[in-house]
Amino acid sequence: MDTVISGKQDTALLVIDPYNDFISEGGKVWDRLKAVAEANHCVPHMLQVLDAARKAELRVFYALHRRYRPGDYETWKHIAPIQKAAWSRKTFEYGTWGGEIRPEFAPRPGEIVAQEHWCSSGFANTDLDLLLKTHGIHKLIVIGLLAHTCVEATVRFAAELGYEVTVVKDATASYSDDHMHAALDVNMPSYASAIVTTNELVEALSFTGERR
Amino acid sequence: MDTVISGKQDTALLVIDPYNDFISEGGKVWDRLKAVAEANHCVPHMLQVLDAARKAELRVFYALHRRYRPGDYETWKHIAPIQKAAWSRKTFEYGTWGGEIRPEFAPRPGEIVAQEHWCSSGFANTDLDLLLKTHGIHKLIVIGLLAHTCVEATVRFAAELGYEVTVVKDATASYSDDHMHAALDVNMPSYASAIVTTNELVEALSFTGERR
Amino acid sequence: MDTVISGKQDTALLVIDPYNDFISEGGKVWDRLKAVAEANHCVPHMLQVLDAARKAELRVFYALHRRYRPGDYETWKHIAPIQKAAWSRKTFEYGTWGGEIRPEFAPRPGEIVAQEHWCSSGFANTDLDLLLKTHGIHKLIVIGLLAHTCVEATVRFAAELGYEVTVVKDATASYSDDHMHAALDVNMPSYASAIVTTNELVEALSFTGERR
Amino acid sequence: MDTVISGKQDTALLVIDPYNDFISEGGKVWDRLKAVAEANHCVPHMLQVLDAARKAELRVFYALHRRYRPGDYETWKHIAPIQKAAWSRKTFEYGTWGGEIRPEFAPRPGEIVAQEHWCSSGFANTDLDLLLKTHGIHKLIVIGLLAHTCVEATVRFAAELGYEVTVVKDATASYSDDHMHAALDVNMPSYASAIVTTNELVEALSFTGERR
Repeated sequence: MDTVISGKQDTALLVIDPYNDFISEGGKVWDRLKAVAEANHCVPHMLQVLDAARKAELRVFYALHRRYRPGDYETWKHIAPIQKAAWSRKTFEYGTWGGEIRPEFAPRPGEIVAQEHWCSSGFANTDLDLLLKTHGIHKLIVIGLLAHTCVEATVRFAAELGYEVTVVKDATASYSDDHMHAALDVNMPSYASAIVTTNELVEALSFTGERR
Repeated sequence: MDTVISGKQDTALLVIDPYNDFISEGGKVWDRLKAVAEANHCVPHMLQVLDAARKAELRVFYALHRRYRPGDYETWKHIAPIQKAAWSRKTFEYGTWGGEIRPEFAPRPGEIVAQEHWCSSGFANTDLDLLLKTHGIHKLIVIGLLAHTCVEATVRFAAELGYEVTVVKDATASYSDDHMHAALDVNMPSYASAIVTTNELVEALSFTGERR
Repeated sequence: MDTVISGKQDTALLVIDPYNDFISEGGKVWDRLKAVAEANHCVPHMLQVLDAARKAELRVFYALHRRYRPGDYETWKHIAPIQKAAWSRKTFEYGTWGGEIRPEFAPRPGEIVAQEHWCSSGFANTDLDLLLKTHGIHKLIVIGLLAHTCVEATVRFAAELGYEVTVVKDATASYSDDHMHAALDVNMPSYASAIVTTNELVEALSFTGERR
Repeated sequence: MDTVISGKQDTALLVIDPYNDFISEGGKVWDRLKAVAEANHCVPHMLQVLDAARKAELRVFYALHRRYRPGDYETWKHIAPIQKAAWSRKTFEYGTWGGEIRPEFAPRPGEIVAQEHWCSSGFANTDLDLLLKTHGIHKLIVIGLLAHTCVEATVRFAAELGYEVTVVKDATASYSDDHMHAALDVNMPSYASAIVTTNELVEALSFTGERR
């Protein structure tokens, strides 16, 4: 853990897609990930990490998926399967409850919300990389949804772009254990410098806080 | 002109920053560019080009500067001079008349508005390149403001990214003839495949329309 | 398949990392992927696809990993685990046999070799996207190695950047069935519009050739 | 100057295109820029800055234009005018003296040479941004050629990407005073946080060295 959270100045927490549609009872996708999310206490863990990061005065960033708006994709010639699915379900529809951030995760003043992205990576076609650089950030702690799509995509892009990444494995969820295994055990170890539990992270952050 | 507007399928009009603050009487920056803009009939020319492009059924895209919102830049460690100026003037302030698109230039259904950009290039840290690609666009006709900042930056980036660019030289403006000369005579000829007048462009587009 | 190979003008074959270190007996990584590669006939299938694409006059592009050179990574402050592994093994060492393309896969005149990439995605920090655009390519057929690292990363980035992707599932390989499953069954279906066999692809390409 | 060279850890020197074709007697482009370059002592100033940066232990990076190789551009559908010019002149031809770095500017061990770029910006379609990030660099001192093409393009992109830029105005050159004026007086003040003389920079760097 040492190398990952060595200093709070260049480390940020990145929260991915804490939309009601994903993590609130009644959300459009919640039923598909509920079993995994409840088994690993994903949502309370996400809150614990967010709380600990704020206490340690880490800068908090949000990477959010495009909230569906009428007209989206209609004129596109090339659409990835995951975009077709989002289109047909109108996931995270703008102006609806499902497309709002679950209240406990609302960004606070001084926290940075990047432009919404169209596919899975918080970095692709957005200002996330710019905003991290203008804040001097080189290391990311990543939490949020879904493990094998937006989280894995963002972790992969972060590594490609030169960021050092820590993933909190019980503060993410997906459709099944098989999806979690693919993301957390098979793929991310190549790109994330550390894959830790919420407990391990919170403990590491508490030292960071003290060290100030 | 032939090579630039050879077919409407892969050609788009790109309208840059038609905000009230730039091109409406009373806008925050209008007074600084009024002399040039009135001399070359910039705003009526922009409208003529927009109208001709719509008639020729070219896809229309908008590249817009970040509209100032409270908190912007406050936590940044690195800010370019042009951003400091935008910050101090609150140019294109979100929720104000100055930060609205001048009504005649309002996007219509099926026209594509890219994410707002933070500096000058419509491509930097936005989804403009993605949206052009998903619509099969390879050639851009560029109009808007300011010639030596956002327009030149967007033209330079477009060329770097592999687009073929036509600039309409009397449908753009800047602070002085010196700024226009730097942008249109000194720099853009290296990056734009054609630099034309509104009349030349409208004529070329009318043929495109007929050829359908 | 129809939507993916509808026309050869905007479709390219993308060959990923056909280095001796990966796919030749004696290569540094071959032993780790040999079991999977021999079971699905990866290398002969890659050749079949390459041959069929050339016959159908598809443009062929190569996405290649950085060939290790002395000094690489030594001064970096942030290095992903997969880069540390490549560094310690000196995989694809420049000037050695392992860092050469296996002879049957050598690029021919008119085929395009993108700049080498540092991590896994052929698009990250390279000119691949530019070169595809300057050749009018919007659709990619992807073959090569490894399924869960460079291939999956390149497929994910391609989708993020607006390309339509076909993956040939028996013209790729990885360390185990578990890795193949994560890449081909769990993750890629979200990003690749089609995942086909070599036979299916070669048949589709032969029609493309005839249709000319 | 204070804000720009406040610490050597996050500041790098970026040397742009010190090719023989640009800055050596007999180079293909030298005759076109000789008058300006000799009037402002561009080449000796570039050497002074390079020497001072090395003494102050700043990391040195090189941004280099694509060296022409047979086949370049031949299959491209979209080529910017500046690329057509480079193609017709075979500027910086690979394997020739003109395409070599002028010997006094040769990179030393530990200095970083980014991938060659195809148009004007050292950042576009290359690994320059990645390499700066993996070395923790947020501030750039820029010298080299040509003021209104590669230097201005690289300065503009750097600002767009969140870097703080200092340009050394007498360690660059171009075709005429008009070109220098467009780049240094009209455009760069929007993007470069400081535009200084070689003397000013060398003095600032000497303090940086002492402060260690």
